[in-house]
Amino acid sequence: MAADPRFHPLAGPLTLGEAAAIAGGELRGDAARLVTGVGPLDAAGKAEISFLDNRRYASQLAATRAGAVVLPPDFANRVPESCAAIITKQPYLGFARIAARLYPRPAPRPGIHPSAVVDPSAVIGAGTEIGPLAVIGAGAEIGSDCVIGPHAVIGDGVVLGEGCRVMAHASVSHCIAGRFVVLHPGVRIGQEGFGFAVTPEGRFETMPQLGRVILEDFVEVGANSCVDRGSQGDTVLGAGTRLDNLVQIAHNVRTGCGCVIVAQVGVAGSVTLGHGVQLAGQSGVAGHLSLGDRARVGAQAGVMNDVPAGADVVGSPAWPARETLRAFAALRKLGQKRAGTDSDRG
Amino acid sequence: MAADPRFHPLAGPLTLGEAAAIAGGELRGDAARLVTGVGPLDAAGKAEISFLDNRRYASQLAATRAGAVVLPPDFANRVPESCAAIITKQPYLGFARIAARLYPRPAPRPGIHPSAVVDPSAVIGAGTEIGPLAVIGAGAEIGSDCVIGPHAVIGDGVVLGEGCRVMAHASVSHCIAGRFVVLHPGVRIGQEGFGFAVTPEGRFETMPQLGRVILEDFVEVGANSCVDRGSQGDTVLGAGTRLDNLVQIAHNVRTGCGCVIVAQVGVAGSVTLGHGVQLAGQSGVAGHLSLGDRARVGAQAGVMNDVPAGADVVGSPAWPARETLRAFAALRKLGQKRAGTDSDRG
Amino acid sequence: MAADPRFHPLAGPLTLGEAAAIAGGELRGDAARLVTGVGPLDAAGKAEISFLDNRRYASQLAATRAGAVVLPPDFANRVPESCAAIITKQPYLGFARIAARLYPRPAPRPGIHPSAVVDPSAVIGAGTEIGPLAVIGAGAEIGSDCVIGPHAVIGDGVVLGEGCRVMAHASVSHCIAGRFVVLHPGVRIGQEGFGFAVTPEGRFETMPQLGRVILEDFVEVGANSCVDRGSQGDTVLGAGTRLDNLVQIAHNVRTGCGCVIVAQVGVAGSVTLGHGVQLAGQSGVAGHLSLGDRARVGAQAGVMNDVPAGADVVGSPAWPARETLRAFAALRKLGQKRAGTDSDRG
Repeated sequence: MAADPRFHPLAGPLTLGEAAAIAGGELRGDAARLVTGVGPLDAAGKAEISFLDNRRYASQLAATRAGAVVLPPDFANRVPESCAAIITKQPYLGFARIAARLYPRPAPRPGIHPSAVVDPSAVIGAGTEIGPLAVIGAGAEIGSDCVIGPHAVIGDGVVLGEGCRVMAHASVSHCIAGRFVVLHPGVRIGQEGFGFAVTPEGRFETMPQLGRVILEDFVEVGANSCVDRGSQGDTVLGAGTRLDNLVQIAHNVRTGCGCVIVAQVGVAGSVTLGHGVQLAGQSGVAGHLSLGDRARVGAQAGVMNDVPAGADVVGSPAWPARETLRAFAALRKLGQKRAGTDSDRG
Repeated sequence: MAADPRFHPLAGPLTLGEAAAIAGGELRGDAARLVTGVGPLDAAGKAEISFLDNRRYASQLAATRAGAVVLPPDFANRVPESCAAIITKQPYLGFARIAARLYPRPAPRPGIHPSAVVDPSAVIGAGTEIGPLAVIGAGAEIGSDCVIGPHAVIGDGVVLGEGCRVMAHASVSHCIAGRFVVLHPGVRIGQEGFGFAVTPEGRFETMPQLGRVILEDFVEVGANSCVDRGSQGDTVLGAGTRLDNLVQIAHNVRTGCGCVIVAQVGVAGSVTLGHGVQLAGQSGVAGHLSLGDRARVGAQAGVMNDVPAGADVVGSPAWPARETLRAFAALRKLGQKRAGTDSDRG
Repeated sequence: MAADPRFHPLAGPLTLGEAAAIAGGELRGDAARLVTGVGPLDAAGKAEISFLDNRRYASQLAATRAGAVVLPPDFANRVPESCAAIITKQPYLGFARIAARLYPRPAPRPGIHPSAVVDPSAVIGAGTEIGPLAVIGAGAEIGSDCVIGPHAVIGDGVVLGEGCRVMAHASVSHCIAGRFVVLHPGVRIGQEGFGFAVTPEGRFETMPQLGRVILEDFVEVGANSCVDRGSQGDTVLGAGTRLDNLVQIAHNVRTGCGCVIVAQVGVAGSVTLGHGVQLAGQSGVAGHLSLGDRARVGAQAGVMNDVPAGADVVGSPAWPARETLRAFAALRKLGQKRAGTDSDRG
């Protein structure tokens, strides 16, 4: 099954030779054969390219009807006869590049929709598209070749670099963003963080939140995620960092480059992440902690202490992964022993 | 206390006889008596109907001033004298039907608000209401008798069947929806999922997300929940499936019919749920797993392995419920023993 | 580094004498010296005021270049010579008050933006600002001196007291709000809760959600958080209660005054919280439970039973904090023992 052309218009066919070159792979098959689309292993047809990366799906390879498959060297001999092979050590990357060529992202349609509300003092770059009912505040600066989606709100003074895409219903305030930043629908950037002082009578008084959000080049933020501005100083997402959906980033968090933060993660205030830190889904990090470069936090883990560079932690509270898995195994045995005891009684 | 008529206009009175018929219950009381509204057991007045379903609230029955109570047979004799009884084995369902008759959902007000931005190529069904400042994209097809709320954004090519309701600020793209689908405020449907390849230099390149979201008939999605489109192929929510608020459904998830997914659950990519699967609040399911029909996952559980049909799992990582509860009990004893030991020393 | 004037315009300088009076602190330094802004300890310059409250940052005090620091008495003698001290037992509160004076929240700009869609039957108070593309429904009543942000949707019949601020993209329906309520971007108030009955054939029928949301004075709700209206009766957030981002409050929850609910917390239906209850990040409370005044729930905890007033609980399922910490320590030892055993074998 090819991609639905209502949503994913096809740029035109590639030859297998072109596809192999784009993927940086070695072709086994007819270099002149045309492919017109992509599809998953179990559904792609003979004019489509597929890929094999996750070995969980290797059993689908023998039966695939795909015209070609991008795959790693050790699977090259398991491709059916009707199917060409594009062999590369990075099949997922190679396939991504072929797919991006066949189905390029729609280019911005330059211009400001007549229903948009753009402050006269805002500066809009060349080639930029401002969608219906978008709002651009006073003094905002939008770079060239950006797409500002329908209903997006860009606050006063916000700066976006070239090639940014702000999708439907996203709101951005108190923010300086670099180039090629992507904010998915419903993202909240730059709002007041959660900060207040308590009076002797027990009332809460808001601590003014006087910082900004800095989004470095190529940052992407998933749907309905929230990044609060700094209380003082800035909240910073380092270059290339990607957030999935429904993530919470509190005030004054700073991440290094290339961090990966999966859906529904929460990072409390003033946490520092090094480069390449990975936080798996629904995990949380308590305030004021530091996680070193390439630290990895497991799904649903609760980080309560600093994590050294390169360490893997899991569990809530989070401990080193190996130790925790052993503790869980021991706990499970305890449960089974009790179960045994109970059934002896029954 | 009756429902606030500013928000919940009343359709008109019912006789108790009519109410009992609607509920499919047996009436003990005066069939001609009129009821004009509904209310909770501890607040309903004599012109109102209440219900008893959760036994936790049974103690309120003796003191209720409600005119009638819908309840199960074993409580029928505990109703106060002033109060009629509508007796049924499904009191919650019976009461829901009476309430829906007394307070019907407002019908669509057909027409397109002058402030809405509707592409000329979009097709809008008969009887459909398009609210203020809604945006309907090119080639979109909206069925008959739908309500598209204020500020909703329906993307290019999206198809919605008859009787759908899309509430304020929801955004829908790359989606084919059946009949009577309900999307609550702030819902995000069809955006790009979280998928990227890593280059040998460590940079991330987006994997084009070339699928769709299929929402079958009667699907409901709660406020600010997110359903990403498939990377290839589709993300599918089966007929009648209901999602609560702030739920994350990643690309290529497929659910059966009648699944129940409670608030803040996260389901990672390519997970398959059978029919009638229940995921309790804040639970999570790791990628590429399968949960069989009627599997049940406890609150905050973290599912790391396939779950067989009909199984109950709890905990993080999730194990079978009975075994886990025993393990927790054993763990608790360990904590108490240590506490004892500590105080012996103290 | 001072606050970015593009986002945080400065109201004008204060003398240190004025600042000390605002903070309610004792000044050690030149009362006539002017300060023009605030900054963090490690970045503030000599015309700026900083503060020290979290002892984690005490080591930054000796090297600060701030013109003055608000701090507690026991640190007064550790301030560098170039730096004035404002000494108070509540340095965080004192500093908040100085910052609020230097950087006051922008006042509403009274009037209705021409792009807003305001029903003729709505009542808008004096001095209130209605932003671009906001929608105000029939019969809504907005108090004086409110700010309704761009793209906010205020539903039919909603009542907001004086001084409320509803930020970009928030939606409010079926709600009565007091004075000085703050709803951050993307907040969802008053939508249908998650309630349905199951028919004997296994289909779901929606239970009409006939209640409201009551937001008492000074309530604040963080970005993209959701508060469902009552099913019958009301969902109530008590005066001064503050919710962080991405919080879920289900139907018929009732909180006392001054509760603190941190990001990504979920509170299930019909839960009652006393006054001053604190729920830490990503914790959850199961339905129909009661938590007494000043109960505290740890991060990621899962509350499955009532919690008495003043109790601290942690873990999932949540137990009393001391007992749980002991159990975790015992569990950790088990993991380490097994690790020892394993390596003996290796």
